[in-house]
Amino acid sequence: MKNFLNEFRKLLGSERVITDSEVLKIYSRSASGISGNVFAILFPENTYEVSEIVKICYKHNIPIYTQGSATELVGSAIPEKGVVISFENMYKIVELNIEDNYVVCEPGLRIGELNIYLEEFGKLFPIEPSSYKSATVGGVINSGAGSLKCIKYGSIRDWILSLEIVLPDENGTILNIGCKTIKCRQGYDLTRLIIGSEGTLAIVTKAILRITNLPENIGYVIATFKNIENLIECVKKLRFEKLNFYMIEFLDDKLTKVISNFTGTELNEYTLFIGIEYPIEIIDKYLNIVEKICYSTGSTYILKFESVEKWKQSRYSKLRQYSYPAKVHEILRQYESKNVRIITEDFVIPLSKLNRLISIIYKLSNEYKIDVYLSGHIGDGNIHPTTWIDLDDINQVKRVNEFIEKVFDYVIEFDGCISGEHGIGIIKKNLLTKEFEKRKSIKAIELMKEIKKIFDPKGILNPGKIF
Amino acid sequence: MKNFLNEFRKLLGSERVITDSEVLKIYSRSASGISGNVFAILFPENTYEVSEIVKICYKHNIPIYTQGSATELVGSAIPEKGVVISFENMYKIVELNIEDNYVVCEPGLRIGELNIYLEEFGKLFPIEPSSYKSATVGGVINSGAGSLKCIKYGSIRDWILSLEIVLPDENGTILNIGCKTIKCRQGYDLTRLIIGSEGTLAIVTKAILRITNLPENIGYVIATFKNIENLIECVKKLRFEKLNFYMIEFLDDKLTKVISNFTGTELNEYTLFIGIEYPIEIIDKYLNIVEKICYSTGSTYILKFESVEKWKQSRYSKLRQYSYPAKVHEILRQYESKNVRIITEDFVIPLSKLNRLISIIYKLSNEYKIDVYLSGHIGDGNIHPTTWIDLDDINQVKRVNEFIEKVFDYVIEFDGCISGEHGIGIIKKNLLTKEFEKRKSIKAIELMKEIKKIFDPKGILNPGKIF
Repeated sequence: MKNFLNEFRKLLGSERVITDSEVLKIYSRSASGISGNVFAILFPENTYEVSEIVKICYKHNIPIYTQGSATELVGSAIPEKGVVISFENMYKIVELNIEDNYVVCEPGLRIGELNIYLEEFGKLFPIEPSSYKSATVGGVINSGAGSLKCIKYGSIRDWILSLEIVLPDENGTILNIGCKTIKCRQGYDLTRLIIGSEGTLAIVTKAILRITNLPENIGYVIATFKNIENLIECVKKLRFEKLNFYMIEFLDDKLTKVISNFTGTELNEYTLFIGIEYPIEIIDKYLNIVEKICYSTGSTYILKFESVEKWKQSRYSKLRQYSYPAKVHEILRQYESKNVRIITEDFVIPLSKLNRLISIIYKLSNEYKIDVYLSGHIGDGNIHPTTWIDLDDINQVKRVNEFIEKVFDYVIEFDGCISGEHGIGIIKKNLLTKEFEKRKSIKAIELMKEIKKIFDPKGILNPGKIF
Repeated sequence: MKNFLNEFRKLLGSERVITDSEVLKIYSRSASGISGNVFAILFPENTYEVSEIVKICYKHNIPIYTQGSATELVGSAIPEKGVVISFENMYKIVELNIEDNYVVCEPGLRIGELNIYLEEFGKLFPIEPSSYKSATVGGVINSGAGSLKCIKYGSIRDWILSLEIVLPDENGTILNIGCKTIKCRQGYDLTRLIIGSEGTLAIVTKAILRITNLPENIGYVIATFKNIENLIECVKKLRFEKLNFYMIEFLDDKLTKVISNFTGTELNEYTLFIGIEYPIEIIDKYLNIVEKICYSTGSTYILKFESVEKWKQSRYSKLRQYSYPAKVHEILRQYESKNVRIITEDFVIPLSKLNRLISIIYKLSNEYKIDVYLSGHIGDGNIHPTTWIDLDDINQVKRVNEFIEKVFDYVIEFDGCISGEHGIGIIKKNLLTKEFEKRKSIKAIELMKEIKKIFDPKGILNPGKIF
């Protein structure tokens, strides 16, 4: 071990090769709650250094794990007896090209910081996961991250124009793939192959992101419903309308109450958040169309906001914004002195099947005596059930695990996908197999394994993930 | 040969195994102008039959070429000593799911027919290449086709949700990949790997396409300019505005004249077509913003249309619509009795570089004494230079080929991509190598070759394309 550590030190200097055991512990964890272990944390400052690190690792057969902010939730960033490449020192905006609508970034740049910077120029990178304040460019690419605004902007695969990658091969080969334009015909789409590959095929060292103009004006509607059936009916009806949606999100009744307590609002039923994009002169007409549909499907209370400013000034906007901290706060309050792990699950399902699935989730949660909060990007069928485990209560751990397994059996049965934005990592490997088995398409995973071998012949890049 | 033909006849019946030499000739060509040769044309009616055909071909090492309408322009559908699978008998709309915004289609369905069908339900599949009346679902997927509306809807990679594919392996393995939802995290993105692979990795036998609501209202502006510099300046300024663009297209002055003659309008300068999406009550305000920008950048004449109806009723809308037939008509008129081939080229380039590139194209066309028409999807930097060759004039053929080669040297030098929507096929194999060489990324092509081997171990599916 000493041997390769010295090679890293020679390359980066001792101060950028960290082996202090307390620091190693920090970099062995992610937001998934899983822990691994690691020999050293390396802090390269440029692509050349990443390539040199790879050469050393290739020579000594050392597993490499890349890390941005480790906000992932499925174990995709967890190291196991190898080195972590942290991109904390590679966070630059290399070029903003306003004329051509792209920005060149290093992987350690946080999405939140990127968008603060872009806002000055009236621009936006619209693929912002809920964790955008911490989540990095490299992280959203590797994890194929989602966004609240998918209903308007589609998925991340259409917003990454080009990548600079380092292959985990003998030469640490540096490749540039993709174009500076949206259209790009270049043989097989290697860019899309890297997006969402969870850091298992190549190391992203630079990315060209497509950007867009900030929307002119967004209006918001909050509508509450006594039950989930009415809320889903409302979303279905809304999607039939020729409306320019910006987002459609929801919270269940329990979560609404928790966040209302936390943020000081009085809402306590199932809550729907609808953003629509229209010029201010005409927004009322469209807010009224939304309002009418909400009432017609049983909404009990409706609030309208004609602009982003009005929305942001309102305490109600915090209901969506504080969804995560409020539920964490509430769960920790209940389990004050205990060893609690919060589990934020993730699936996508066609809207037409959502009603049946949610009623099954409620039935199962009663059966297994488990509390569950439901929320998510309902406009595109992406739901995040949240539950929690007291790790000292073996019985509860068992119950929760069985509950989750059953829920995903139904997700698969109802033509859903086991992940919309979090990915597979370590936790969902079995579920991925189940999903492809149900479709009689298990060979898809065999193809993935063969692709992995092409990019990573020694299997040293983030091994043990996805399959 | 007789042996395997009999196996096909046993599977499909004689009437769906065509070996008539005149018919074979027809299926050996595409819109690219290239011809190949083929042993038999097979007309399967379902996925099972495709899978069985593959088994026979695998056993006898017979190359397989799939074909929709053969509208491709780079030789990607040209057979060479094998069998063509024609999807003319697999053109069904299997399921339209309005609630979940998707449509399940067979590969032989024409995009134009699909959209006529969807229009009744207020829905749209927005990735329509210019050849949409002929182009098939399988064709647009395999060729990674483009669209006039890319500036609004992005690229095809975000509009294909799921694919049923048949692998060219021993078992003709049938796989289902992708999801019924926009978000879909399933390990490596095999769906995007198939999109644009030009039929070299797997045979698409069914596809789930994402659909969207038809836009509420589109307004159009036509603006003419004395020169291309002003027109490009206008496009740049437009893109800075927070406008909801639907399309930004252009024609050069020569092409404008040709199409004006053909359609009976009086325009004769560089012409810009701008579509914007706003409700009818407010469209004037935004048409006026566009108009102002056009005038401020030197536009000589401007026409405005407040709705799709007004636009369609106008003879000016035909200017864009008849771009292709008008230029073909004019070229054939000039070369009446000769052996003319029309060449529609395709590249994408960042808008900031377009001015320099176009002035070089004009310089080169003078130098080589070649007529060239320029037009295309300028809003996203995708330009289609059109020229033609009298195949009996060896000197001209040589000049045109040298001219095209030089143009693409500059496309590559200016950070463009050698294809925006037509693909690589046979014609652009060398250019693809040049593009990756310029980026010091030639290994990308090696990776593609290895990926091909995984999917197609015997190399029997559309061999000789891309690389």
